[in-house]
Amino acid sequence: MNSPLSALETPALLLDRTKLDRNLTRMRGKLAPHKVALRPHVKTAKSVDVVKRAVAPGTGGITVSTLKEADQFFAAGYKDILYAVGIAPNKLDHVAALRARGCDLKVILDNVEAARAVAATGVPALIEIDSDGHRAGVKPGDARLLETGRVLGVNLRGVMTHAGGSYDCKSVDEIRGYARREREAVVQCAHELKAAGLRCDIVSVGSSPTVTYGETFAGVTEVRAGVYMLFDLFMAGINVCSLDDIALSVLTTVIGHQAEKGWILTDAGWMAMSRDRGTAGQAMDQGYGVVCDIDGRPLDDLIVSGANQEHGIISRRAGGEIDVMQYPVGRLLRVLPNHACATAAQHAAYHVLGNAGEIESVWPRFSGW
Amino acid sequence: MNSPLSALETPALLLDRTKLDRNLTRMRGKLAPHKVALRPHVKTAKSVDVVKRAVAPGTGGITVSTLKEADQFFAAGYKDILYAVGIAPNKLDHVAALRARGCDLKVILDNVEAARAVAATGVPALIEIDSDGHRAGVKPGDARLLETGRVLGVNLRGVMTHAGGSYDCKSVDEIRGYARREREAVVQCAHELKAAGLRCDIVSVGSSPTVTYGETFAGVTEVRAGVYMLFDLFMAGINVCSLDDIALSVLTTVIGHQAEKGWILTDAGWMAMSRDRGTAGQAMDQGYGVVCDIDGRPLDDLIVSGANQEHGIISRRAGGEIDVMQYPVGRLLRVLPNHACATAAQHAAYHVLGNAGEIESVWPRFSGW
Repeated sequence: MNSPLSALETPALLLDRTKLDRNLTRMRGKLAPHKVALRPHVKTAKSVDVVKRAVAPGTGGITVSTLKEADQFFAAGYKDILYAVGIAPNKLDHVAALRARGCDLKVILDNVEAARAVAATGVPALIEIDSDGHRAGVKPGDARLLETGRVLGVNLRGVMTHAGGSYDCKSVDEIRGYARREREAVVQCAHELKAAGLRCDIVSVGSSPTVTYGETFAGVTEVRAGVYMLFDLFMAGINVCSLDDIALSVLTTVIGHQAEKGWILTDAGWMAMSRDRGTAGQAMDQGYGVVCDIDGRPLDDLIVSGANQEHGIISRRAGGEIDVMQYPVGRLLRVLPNHACATAAQHAAYHVLGNAGEIESVWPRFSGW
Repeated sequence: MNSPLSALETPALLLDRTKLDRNLTRMRGKLAPHKVALRPHVKTAKSVDVVKRAVAPGTGGITVSTLKEADQFFAAGYKDILYAVGIAPNKLDHVAALRARGCDLKVILDNVEAARAVAATGVPALIEIDSDGHRAGVKPGDARLLETGRVLGVNLRGVMTHAGGSYDCKSVDEIRGYARREREAVVQCAHELKAAGLRCDIVSVGSSPTVTYGETFAGVTEVRAGVYMLFDLFMAGINVCSLDDIALSVLTTVIGHQAEKGWILTDAGWMAMSRDRGTAGQAMDQGYGVVCDIDGRPLDDLIVSGANQEHGIISRRAGGEIDVMQYPVGRLLRVLPNHACATAAQHAAYHVLGNAGEIESVWPRFSGW
């Protein structure tokens, strides 16, 4: 049932199965010596077909960023689910309903108010720890840790942190520093809670950069990572992967040119790529994406330098003329995305590329809350 | 069947019906003296429930940015449809199938290669004119205009342009200049085509800024605009609307604080707001959105200053402390978006706010291609 790329209407989201599987295998190999569980984050893929290759239903836990993800993955047979965004009280009925149906859904929080609401419903919770100052969480040593833990009481299950600050690292050494602080922060907090007689079974850390470069996970029970399955230009920009590891791309068609400006116009604008310009802050600004040929090889230093809703403007990174005859109207191109989570979210399905360079299946994905 | 906002799980997309209707009425009033048809662009709303308030099915034409929009709106009774993105040859089968079912779908193009493919299928087409150098199109006076028109032959229906450059204007006078050049470019091209004995029934211009401030549409048969239905901070930033005209907002819940940093954390991150940072290039950078109370009134100079996938970080525009007790965990807030097209695209439905400040209905919207 394989079909060629030329049979697709563009823009279309492509997923290279070989690269996906290689990324999953590499992560398993990395973690094997560390005796630490992997709780993959499904927020990037939002597809049971993708995630079941990382962890089969019933064989391990997953992390979600929305209750929609919890609904969908629970329906697919996943029970051990961590909802890793600070719980809002208006979501507790939904959480309780999932738990009543047999889903072992756990929530996170970093304050006494949320802990009171959670304790009142009997939902198990982890306390979010701030290991790098980039977002939410209680800092190690902050009196609010024990205060929140005591309010949670029997509902307390452990601690978790996410070193999102690692995304801004300029070197691998810097990422290792984030991984070290991520581990130290939760291990210290787990000790504080246990010393106070509170329960702390789960000690959870993670981000694709810190899990990739972490040197020890001593005292940690599980790591979380999601974008490592698909990877993207942003991760390549901080040396967490190579361009060749990026499993995701957007297939697009040349629709015209502005030859004197060195522009190739395509039908993949920001609606297909997302508005994510994360690489703008990196050493190598990739515009809205790196342009490749139909086989996925970067072409002629071309990037998507501009984007409107349904138009992409491709030009040379350094500007200058382009032989537009090399890219005639109708030519198919592939674009590697800045941010896999954001680009995938713009699409309803993955068109899965097999070894032969043809579409071997279509894997649905979902969006929303 | 009204329900209060507090009954919604957040984040959720809200649409203020009173503001929507006021925006539609204002545009009708603006165009009434000009004897020019309005062909609303449905790419912002992507909802039959919204668009039918602008033009009832069967009573006028619409503009689409994807063939999915053409499919959906044709199914809802719209027949006169202009697909306003340069046609890619791989979409012509889809176009022809819609036409075979009775949809009067027209395409656009700006080159001889696409014209040949279109002529071979008998699909009617408009030639895209470049009136401001911002994207695609043939410039007035360029020999390719007649060349393309002759290749189209009996399939030629007219000319169209979109002054997307008007989005970067710093003053209303500048927008008026774009509107003038937009009109002059297509009228000149229509003359050139007619003088060569070619058919040019449709002379189409438009963007919400140039339609709002255009002073004459002489020689133009129709105008196109889409974002004027919902409006957003970007349009407010170039004086095409006021903050009070913005019909779209995202309902979100406070999930925590980092008090010493002056941060309020919410559950509306970039997945709910989109990654669009269009106002970053304007005089007033609105971050990821302007924060309002539950009634839609801007609050305390608060903006969404940072966003992760499912986390929003709210702070004062100028920085500084916040009385976090004013915004306790669980408090509902509303965020006005930078770009209606991008924010709405992240959601599957509009929760429609009636006069009483309650949700009176849910209007589905669609995404994808």
